Amino acid sequence: MARVKRLERIVALTKELTDKPFQLFPFSYFCDKFTVAKSTLSEDVQTVRNGLAAYDLGIIETVAGASGGVRFIPYHTAKSDNQFLGELCERLNSPDRVLPGGMIYMNDLILNPQIVSRLGEIIMQRSIELKPQYIMTVETKGIPLGLSAAKAFNIPMVMARKEARITEGPAVSISYLSGSTKKIQSMSLPKKALPHGARVLVIDDFMRAGGTANGLCELAEEVGAEVVGVYLFIAAKDPAKKLVREYASLLTLRGVDETSKAVDIVPEML
Amino acid sequence: MARVKRLERIVALTKELTDKPFQLFPFSYFCDKFTVAKSTLSEDVQTVRNGLAAYDLGIIETVAGASGGVRFIPYHTAKSDNQFLGELCERLNSPDRVLPGGMIYMNDLILNPQIVSRLGEIIMQRSIELKPQYIMTVETKGIPLGLSAAKAFNIPMVMARKEARITEGPAVSISYLSGSTKKIQSMSLPKKALPHGARVLVIDDFMRAGGTANGLCELAEEVGAEVVGVYLFIAAKDPAKKLVREYASLLTLRGVDETSKAVDIVPEML
Repeated sequence: MARVKRLERIVALTKELTDKPFQLFPFSYFCDKFTVAKSTLSEDVQTVRNGLAAYDLGIIETVAGASGGVRFIPYHTAKSDNQFLGELCERLNSPDRVLPGGMIYMNDLILNPQIVSRLGEIIMQRSIELKPQYIMTVETKGIPLGLSAAKAFNIPMVMARKEARITEGPAVSISYLSGSTKKIQSMSLPKKALPHGARVLVIDDFMRAGGTANGLCELAEEVGAEVVGVYLFIAAKDPAKKLVREYASLLTLRGVDETSKAVDIVPEML
Repeated sequence: MARVKRLERIVALTKELTDKPFQLFPFSYFCDKFTVAKSTLSEDVQTVRNGLAAYDLGIIETVAGASGGVRFIPYHTAKSDNQFLGELCERLNSPDRVLPGGMIYMNDLILNPQIVSRLGEIIMQRSIELKPQYIMTVETKGIPLGLSAAKAFNIPMVMARKEARITEGPAVSISYLSGSTKKIQSMSLPKKALPHGARVLVIDDFMRAGGTANGLCELAEEVGAEVVGVYLFIAAKDPAKKLVREYASLLTLRGVDETSKAVDIVPEML
């Protein structure tokens, strides 16, 4: 009976930890829930750690001390991430995705919950040292990826709008020059969305010249936040000179030929 | 040694199954992965089922036959869901959320990944018998909730835009009358987003008169899809007569007083 209980406990412990990445659960939370001693729980935690590690499913971290506890951090090997991104590129490079103007149809991929969840985890893993406290994106197509990264980091997301909305209260607005179309555009963020000094990771689906990404950075700084990084799903290789100083992307668009329908998107390998 | 291996296997099995709700994994997938016989795997699956059930963490379903397998279905008790929604209402009813025009600030909640994940699971659980094949929403604020419901169902999401975009290819557009502002608006959906006859669950963050929700239904039907349901995060009690025939919501806005800053949002209990 005790053995069966241990197995069930391991299942529940795995599910609760992996459901909430980065959330630090005090040991007492699980000791109370499972009515076990701390030493027993420690063994269970070690089992979960070993099981996840054995199958490349993530990391269990324990934090010692009075305010300590245990948490799950999504993790995949670089090889597995590279392969995932490579396969995604194969799908993106399909000729039937090329639209007039050399645009590429990718809604079916960035709105697929399993794909976008994994992309969010890869961004998290590749930018973990930036220690962001908020994910920031702009409507519309950056939202699914931003939310997935926010889930992987277990931090909130904030969302800039193309125009201020009355449903979002007092807002800060900026105007910016779209890098590729050279049009003046504006975007706004609710004043209460970001606390002063918050560390912000900017995420968007696509960047060509970087006008929008740069606008997001300006907007974040305008409300007193600190931009710690800019991460794109796809960044175009051209123009080489971007309006943002630093950025990273999961994929790079090296070229698209509207006539031959040839698309050349490659993964950023680690 | 064999015992340790079993524990690790249980951990990996739990993580893989719960990561991908509704995905039917063939038994052979896990038998190969863990190099175990089917009888051993069946015992492991039973253990995962018991562990999740014991702590209200979801359901494991096995499907017999050649095309059978095992899958995870998120599940919480009605009591636990009711409590979650009740606590959310307490936060929403805070006077400092009232904005001019009687609008309510809720971005911090619907952009919080843990909250919106749970809301998506509750919508899934309460509309599971509709058997949707696609989630459909409209930019912007319905996207996080739509994506979470899509993740819980393990189905793709499609997204209508307020105007057609060249990055999304040929689109079908409709005009509709916003129920509350009485303004003519338009929205569009890429033609290739929904296959003919697809069963669609429409999701949005808020509904007053139902003009937008009704527009989404018309748009889905315009491309030959079948709307099986409409689910809102919050539906206003007034006007009682909505433009959609049938709908359900997680919460109901019974009233908001701009002067006294009193908000009255209540959960839909099951």
